[in-house]
Amino acid sequence: MIITESEIRVRYGETDMMGFAYHANYFAWFEVARIDFLDKIGIPYQTIEEKGYRLPVLEANARFIKPVLFDYQLTIKTIIREKPRVKIKIDYEVYNHDKLHCSGYTRHGFINFDGTPLRPPSEFIDRVDTCWKEV
Amino acid sequence: MIITESEIRVRYGETDMMGFAYHANYFAWFEVARIDFLDKIGIPYQTIEEKGYRLPVLEANARFIKPVLFDYQLTIKTIIREKPRVKIKIDYEVYNHDKLHCSGYTRHGFINFDGTPLRPPSEFIDRVDTCWKEV
Amino acid sequence: MIITESEIRVRYGETDMMGFAYHANYFAWFEVARIDFLDKIGIPYQTIEEKGYRLPVLEANARFIKPVLFDYQLTIKTIIREKPRVKIKIDYEVYNHDKLHCSGYTRHGFINFDGTPLRPPSEFIDRVDTCWKEV
Amino acid sequence: MIITESEIRVRYGETDMMGFAYHANYFAWFEVARIDFLDKIGIPYQTIEEKGYRLPVLEANARFIKPVLFDYQLTIKTIIREKPRVKIKIDYEVYNHDKLHCSGYTRHGFINFDGTPLRPPSEFIDRVDTCWKEV
Repeated sequence: MIITESEIRVRYGETDMMGFAYHANYFAWFEVARIDFLDKIGIPYQTIEEKGYRLPVLEANARFIKPVLFDYQLTIKTIIREKPRVKIKIDYEVYNHDKLHCSGYTRHGFINFDGTPLRPPSEFIDRVDTCWKEV
Repeated sequence: MIITESEIRVRYGETDMMGFAYHANYFAWFEVARIDFLDKIGIPYQTIEEKGYRLPVLEANARFIKPVLFDYQLTIKTIIREKPRVKIKIDYEVYNHDKLHCSGYTRHGFINFDGTPLRPPSEFIDRVDTCWKEV
Repeated sequence: MIITESEIRVRYGETDMMGFAYHANYFAWFEVARIDFLDKIGIPYQTIEEKGYRLPVLEANARFIKPVLFDYQLTIKTIIREKPRVKIKIDYEVYNHDKLHCSGYTRHGFINFDGTPLRPPSEFIDRVDTCWKEV
Repeated sequence: MIITESEIRVRYGETDMMGFAYHANYFAWFEVARIDFLDKIGIPYQTIEEKGYRLPVLEANARFIKPVLFDYQLTIKTIIREKPRVKIKIDYEVYNHDKLHCSGYTRHGFINFDGTPLRPPSEFIDRVDTCWKEV
């Protein structure tokens, strides 16, 4: 398993007239957390694209447990529970002061710039192996 | 079952540097389709809020099957397959010229302005009953 | 002068906790109106990009006169008052039922894909000339 | 004059198919910088709303000088050059490694929750006076 933590501060423009953060924005936050995850395990997304790979989102899911307000300082835990083979599943947990407000996941697959599915680049596999912790 | 159709034209600002529509925007499109669905069955979202109800998103899911490009004129089918009791599940299918590009769903529950869960307002139940088609 | 009109329906996700449409979204609406303008004068933005040109925004301005609410059906007037030479200035007026809620403008310049400034493509100049009405 | 500095990291979803950050997002960044400015001078926006005031945007302007790419770590300088009386003008300068990529401004007025214009709350005036530096 690999877990990293990222910080998000809720923007005014991310709220809606219900007074809470608009649900679609959580998926943008997941992406911020995912980019930060890749940085932290040592293979930035930029590097992935420079090697000719892209990592599109194949599926995205979120369960909204408690609303989130403007200016909250959120902690997002990004978690990989299974070593990626072809597809990658990433879990997210959104916390405000240790309370879970949202959980979700995204599924991804590596492709080249023509859209052809590829196995993950070896550097990615290596970084995951290096950072992996059995639990 | 109830099915309605809505049209979305992909905005330039909804694309990302991969050249496709950014995945989080599909959830905003689902919402446009959902608002249109409520209009079409005869109980606009505004009416729901005026009666003291809100209809937050409890869960959102999308599977991204084929990418969507700038300026595509998309058709979103909004589908209710089961009569809502307390929770409501809405399915979405995003088409470009009869090709399915994305499918997803959202789950909702009615609450009052204090956040207390409520049964759906009777007007909503009535409108669903009136528009329902057995399949 | 050339004037075209485009319709925008305010999305729930475009509101903020103040209860009105969030100001940055008006610039996305200006873009929708601008894309529609190019379609209506007969040179779609896609065509411009296919010819190797891009039309980035050099400056954007908006004055927010009256707030705009969820689900408003807005009319945006897109106006070119001066024939474009190198730079292009486009004005926008956002109306709800004949009341002006916002006015703004964007300035643009044509560039190639390397970012080098170019004179407008002749097809663009031709279309503007054809659609021009003296006032 | 008062100057504060804020950091923004460009999100993937903030880029568009041109490969750069989409122009409307700068206005959301200005807001992040503005909220941070209010925190830093000691009167958070939350406090302003709790006292019954709102601070809507009356005008927004940006000149886009050089494009900004995904993952850039930007510094936004937020500047008040004139002591606010009724209206407030705030300037923004967006830097990447000391290069100016964008400059802009917003104008604001205090209102109450009914939309009636008000003079700035005395706490705001006091904080501005305390933080003011003659130049």
